[in-house]
Amino acid sequence: MSNKTQTVGEFLFDYLHKQGVNHAFGIPGDFVLGTCRWLEKSPIEFINMTHEPSVGFAADAYSRVTGGLGVAVVTYCVGGLNMVNSIAGAYAEKSPVVVISGGPSPSDRRNDSLIHHKVRTFDTQRRIYDEVTCASTVLLDPETAADEIIRVVAAAKANSRPVYIEVPFDVTDMPIKAPSLHASKVAAPVSDKDSLAAFVAQAAAFINQAKQPVIVADVELHRLGLTDLAVEFAKKFNFPIASTLLSKSVISDKNPLFIGTYSGTLSLPVVKDYVESSDCLIMLGAFISDVLYGFTKANIQRNNTILCTSEKASIGHQHYEGIVLKEFIEALLAAPITPRAGFDHPNPYAPYPALTDAQRAEQVDSDSFFEIIEQGMPDNTIITSDTGDALLGAIGLRTTKRNTFIAGAYYLSMGFGIPAAIGACAANLGGRVMAMVGDGAFQMTGLELSTAAKFGYNPIILLLNNDGYGTQRGIIDGDFNKLQQWKYTKTTDLIGYGKGVTVQTKGELESALKAAVADTDNLHFIEVMIPKGDCSRSLKRVGEGLAEQRDATKRQKTPA
Amino acid sequence: MSNKTQTVGEFLFDYLHKQGVNHAFGIPGDFVLGTCRWLEKSPIEFINMTHEPSVGFAADAYSRVTGGLGVAVVTYCVGGLNMVNSIAGAYAEKSPVVVISGGPSPSDRRNDSLIHHKVRTFDTQRRIYDEVTCASTVLLDPETAADEIIRVVAAAKANSRPVYIEVPFDVTDMPIKAPSLHASKVAAPVSDKDSLAAFVAQAAAFINQAKQPVIVADVELHRLGLTDLAVEFAKKFNFPIASTLLSKSVISDKNPLFIGTYSGTLSLPVVKDYVESSDCLIMLGAFISDVLYGFTKANIQRNNTILCTSEKASIGHQHYEGIVLKEFIEALLAAPITPRAGFDHPNPYAPYPALTDAQRAEQVDSDSFFEIIEQGMPDNTIITSDTGDALLGAIGLRTTKRNTFIAGAYYLSMGFGIPAAIGACAANLGGRVMAMVGDGAFQMTGLELSTAAKFGYNPIILLLNNDGYGTQRGIIDGDFNKLQQWKYTKTTDLIGYGKGVTVQTKGELESALKAAVADTDNLHFIEVMIPKGDCSRSLKRVGEGLAEQRDATKRQKTPA
Repeated sequence: MSNKTQTVGEFLFDYLHKQGVNHAFGIPGDFVLGTCRWLEKSPIEFINMTHEPSVGFAADAYSRVTGGLGVAVVTYCVGGLNMVNSIAGAYAEKSPVVVISGGPSPSDRRNDSLIHHKVRTFDTQRRIYDEVTCASTVLLDPETAADEIIRVVAAAKANSRPVYIEVPFDVTDMPIKAPSLHASKVAAPVSDKDSLAAFVAQAAAFINQAKQPVIVADVELHRLGLTDLAVEFAKKFNFPIASTLLSKSVISDKNPLFIGTYSGTLSLPVVKDYVESSDCLIMLGAFISDVLYGFTKANIQRNNTILCTSEKASIGHQHYEGIVLKEFIEALLAAPITPRAGFDHPNPYAPYPALTDAQRAEQVDSDSFFEIIEQGMPDNTIITSDTGDALLGAIGLRTTKRNTFIAGAYYLSMGFGIPAAIGACAANLGGRVMAMVGDGAFQMTGLELSTAAKFGYNPIILLLNNDGYGTQRGIIDGDFNKLQQWKYTKTTDLIGYGKGVTVQTKGELESALKAAVADTDNLHFIEVMIPKGDCSRSLKRVGEGLAEQRDATKRQKTPA
Repeated sequence: MSNKTQTVGEFLFDYLHKQGVNHAFGIPGDFVLGTCRWLEKSPIEFINMTHEPSVGFAADAYSRVTGGLGVAVVTYCVGGLNMVNSIAGAYAEKSPVVVISGGPSPSDRRNDSLIHHKVRTFDTQRRIYDEVTCASTVLLDPETAADEIIRVVAAAKANSRPVYIEVPFDVTDMPIKAPSLHASKVAAPVSDKDSLAAFVAQAAAFINQAKQPVIVADVELHRLGLTDLAVEFAKKFNFPIASTLLSKSVISDKNPLFIGTYSGTLSLPVVKDYVESSDCLIMLGAFISDVLYGFTKANIQRNNTILCTSEKASIGHQHYEGIVLKEFIEALLAAPITPRAGFDHPNPYAPYPALTDAQRAEQVDSDSFFEIIEQGMPDNTIITSDTGDALLGAIGLRTTKRNTFIAGAYYLSMGFGIPAAIGACAANLGGRVMAMVGDGAFQMTGLELSTAAKFGYNPIILLLNNDGYGTQRGIIDGDFNKLQQWKYTKTTDLIGYGKGVTVQTKGELESALKAAVADTDNLHFIEVMIPKGDCSRSLKRVGEGLAEQRDATKRQKTPA
């Protein structure tokens, strides 16, 4: 034990800082004020925001762009229970966010007092978080608090999933006992040797007999830090690589092996055809979900797949147990696989030609929006994308740096884009942060731009205004898809920060983007008017698919 | 069975309408679109809002002002999990809100598909809601759906607590089987006869020997529809009545027996002294929480109390089991209790004198704010109050109609005030709706005024701008209590609706309120500048109390 005894709150943030955390997101409240004071004294910067749903999204995005832990600090119940959705998204998409909540005192618990913020029992919040985290602890005892913090943080890293740490308001100021010596040792997972050998042998044989092997590099590669390994594997044997909408920027678009982003119906046809006609899809770290792998029907024949994730390993319909993804890729690298001669795969990314003057006068629409953005954004731009056409239309958007396209592409919660931009701005990775968000999503969490104002961040906000819940119109329309039409650029007046402009034509968008990119001292807010009813080609395909699926299900279920 | 077969979605809203529901609050999403379509076709008006946390608050407030059910319609996980905090508040404060969520198809569940929005299992959302509701159902089978809907709605009414109904996106369109005959019969709870007799006999004796009996009429009287019965009891025996901050408007301030609102440290001294010096407090339907009955220490001696709630019955330290609150009050009415001769209790509510010209020129502060509001608001005003000084300072605010002061005074979640005003506006009870909200709370959910714009509501918004989280400054201060200072009145520009004004002096507030009250065609937004550091007398007492409590706990826990 060192000479200087730390308190529980002091140790907590000191330990997180040593784990690489430089920023924490949160909102104070009476049960967590003491812990906030320790955070303020720590080397971690406290980004205090306006509303808890945004706090969870920002911490999640921070984790995604930095590749490390995100930290979200909230008060008991009225704070924590207001962030369940964001943390559920982090759980679903494997983002290691450490939720730190204030809590009542152990003595309140012993007396079973009816204290404010309590719902049913003192454990209501923890029980709820147990559904959306992989480990949790309530630090009732400073004697064991250090070990508990280390255990739970290690679980977040090992599983790449959120965890929950509740710090009672009084315990945060108590002296902590030094961690026990074994506390920080977390054994790395190990494969079943024989099972791995059998899996690799069959995989190598399957690959060698295939005509057109394709690697699908999915999100777990990023979360588990295995992207370089997967790229090395692709390079050694000359296999083309696709990403998915969830892992979109895991591979640079400039990598000559990269063939584009695959997500079933959403994909550009050339990418879709190439992936779906492969007789050997090597799917690494994939989430096989409806949206990412085809909304309406299986587009991929299972017989043609080798799948390895943190949870599953299979070739066709044969499953293997006890396989660790990292060890599988390492073993493939050393396996007797015949390299392919050259690149016979398509390159879907011809650069867009510059706009003509006639085009500049045209009304911008969903598809031209993404083309103009791609042409105008600097290479190191970090994009956060909200659910809706801001995401689905972005499938063809080229990003040349890795980990620079951040979106909740599996969980698909609206309201992610703006708070995620705050998280990315805080991480301060050098590139400009650009948020793409629809009008419906903006009405949910858009005013979190207040936090950009407070901390002097300079994101570029691209609001796609298609006058309502456009994505839903293609499925079932009704008055419920209508929104109050805001004067969105007035947002900058309300928060007293940034410059706003509304654009109607392609030329106006091009100019506004150019001005925003040139002016790095300001938040720029560009409202892009999209004709009502218009949507991207990808969204059109999805809407048709979903409507079709619902009709098919109905026909199947409804007695005639 | 009637000739016309209804679908599940059709039956659901038809049944809720028959239970007195005229408005439902919600946000569409793909899993709930079909159900939204049935809602739109039903006689219930669909108030679609901007963000789910607000939906829960609005439905809760609707329930509180109407005395009936609130209904909140959301999509699966990304919607429902974004509303957990609001429903937790409804659970904690006993508001019967029916949560209707879309959900995946039974066939998705059978195949265990990885569909978008799913977190851990298909039941994640339901399991979470089981922590904050008193009954739940997933309508997987249209054969039993009608009985399930009736069972769960009956539970909401019987327990006055939220319930959860998940409607799979395809099941909503399937034909429903008529409910079975026993489905709607829910037996009213009945007391243990002997226990009740013993309780009433002892209570009557205890009351008769007391010098100063006082009734504390708390929130369950409102939730269980027992207010009239309690007032009858008070009137028959000439007992004075106090409310609490949570039940504030359960008794009209014009009732001659009413002595004011009691909430421990927060109370006006004259009310506090009278209640705490009572040797016989008859506490009906009370939540004995820290905030409502004294933040820092027990102000009430248990030996002096008769307590009866839906869960507990006691006199001093003696407990009785099997007591139903309604039957207890009925039995007290018939018990041999000696009526008191007259009113010897204080009347704390002398009307405030009109402002002098000199006063009109003074800077408005927290205390004068409430005085000016009380003088200027019409009798039938419905007030929604957010957490912070907008609530704590309001303890002395007189409301002359019943059920017209709505606040989350026990659960104390910030962000309640504006969405609650939307719920109250939708209920359309005749009186003008006035929301009182601090700047911190406004940054959370204030833009929900968009919904007022969309539906043409005319609330008066009173924003108390004290430049940050004022309530917390008195406990522990730090940079984390600072907010970006918005130009709040620009809200009306952003949403394109309403009139905004900022006031600094008492005279300006008086005039702005007068203009707002006179103009019933518009939303009026009045930003009231409160000097930073200033707060109401009640909040000062609370802040001091909390800081004291934390220090005391620390001294007790920290080894020297």
